[in-house]
Amino acid sequence: MVEGHKSIAEFVNSAYHIEAVYHTPAFVPKVLKLSQKINLCGISIAELEKISSLKTPQDVVAQINIPEWPVLKPEELKGRFSLVLDGIQDPGNMGTIIRIADWFGISHIICSDDTVDVYNPKVVQASMGSLARVKVYYTSLTDFLPASGLPAFGALLDGKDIYDTDFGTEGLILMGNEGNGLRADVQELVHKAVTIPRIGKAESLNVAIATALFCSEATRKNV
Amino acid sequence: MVEGHKSIAEFVNSAYHIEAVYHTPAFVPKVLKLSQKINLCGISIAELEKISSLKTPQDVVAQINIPEWPVLKPEELKGRFSLVLDGIQDPGNMGTIIRIADWFGISHIICSDDTVDVYNPKVVQASMGSLARVKVYYTSLTDFLPASGLPAFGALLDGKDIYDTDFGTEGLILMGNEGNGLRADVQELVHKAVTIPRIGKAESLNVAIATALFCSEATRKNV
Repeated sequence: MVEGHKSIAEFVNSAYHIEAVYHTPAFVPKVLKLSQKINLCGISIAELEKISSLKTPQDVVAQINIPEWPVLKPEELKGRFSLVLDGIQDPGNMGTIIRIADWFGISHIICSDDTVDVYNPKVVQASMGSLARVKVYYTSLTDFLPASGLPAFGALLDGKDIYDTDFGTEGLILMGNEGNGLRADVQELVHKAVTIPRIGKAESLNVAIATALFCSEATRKNV
Repeated sequence: MVEGHKSIAEFVNSAYHIEAVYHTPAFVPKVLKLSQKINLCGISIAELEKISSLKTPQDVVAQINIPEWPVLKPEELKGRFSLVLDGIQDPGNMGTIIRIADWFGISHIICSDDTVDVYNPKVVQASMGSLARVKVYYTSLTDFLPASGLPAFGALLDGKDIYDTDFGTEGLILMGNEGNGLRADVQELVHKAVTIPRIGKAESLNVAIATALFCSEATRKNV
């Protein structure tokens, strides 16, 4: 389920297949002007409120098929940066990270199997339509990382200062769980431990904020 | 009201005065070991659930006095970076921005009068205790900005690339409302318009994410 005019428009203009769009009489179907043939279903406000996961739903909800992406081939990740998430749990963080990836031109996110489901309604909502462009995979990170053949930069305490780190032109950026960071067996597969230096006194940075700073530093030379 | 052991500990070790700490029998009062004399009140779980603004409250809530900060003097802001917020509305964003400021050693945030109240429970919660260290002021930005005598860097579209911007050693970082950005009359008072270049296709970055990138770039030379 995707809610919100902007997010629905992003999915309509993507590789996703729109199963149906449910809308109240107030809805002006601008999405119809877009590429896909859309199956439009008029419903009442009361029905919309039952379907919606929002407290104050907009006038439209789209039902979108969950695609079966082809198996990720390591060569797809060559010459670019990708994100690797180890056990991110908060749907808001996950959605925000997808939006950040989309901003920085990162098109692949590889998650540990216990990372929050990318099709959780709160994740979809927080991704603000960026989920339509970023591919998210779930796998065993301890299998994936060595097989990728790519440099793995891990967000860790006591690593190299991020501002002095040469990210080169390709690699994996590893971000860990909100409370516990990267698991020990994943840490062992990190090639470069990298740290955002703290100037003030906050105990930590939110994982989505840290992800944005890593994406910024990794891609800034390529701008 | 401040909730959560860590956040309460931050306030106990700050200039704030703790009026009272309400706790259930399960609470182990580690905060007692800290500097202030604390007025501890035992309450039942049912009472705590009434007081708390969380769905699953912890075993303790602190009632903290809202301080009356002395009037901000422009010379306090010399030789450092401060944040200026123009109409931020979302409490989660506001709290996250306070936490980011604290991480980057930014101790003053100046807000337009219509910015969300910093003592909103959701702001306090999202700031994760950093509110104990960061001073937040509300004022007319069109009066404050010219009077400050500091360079004003504004987060705007079509500004100078943030990665090519010399922030120098002091100044104000201006961030605008989630939907509308900086107001026209505030934009007129910006000395340098600065933009985070987009590599991918996301329509925008969340304002807290953008704030983190600005704080990172402004302070990185001082690390």
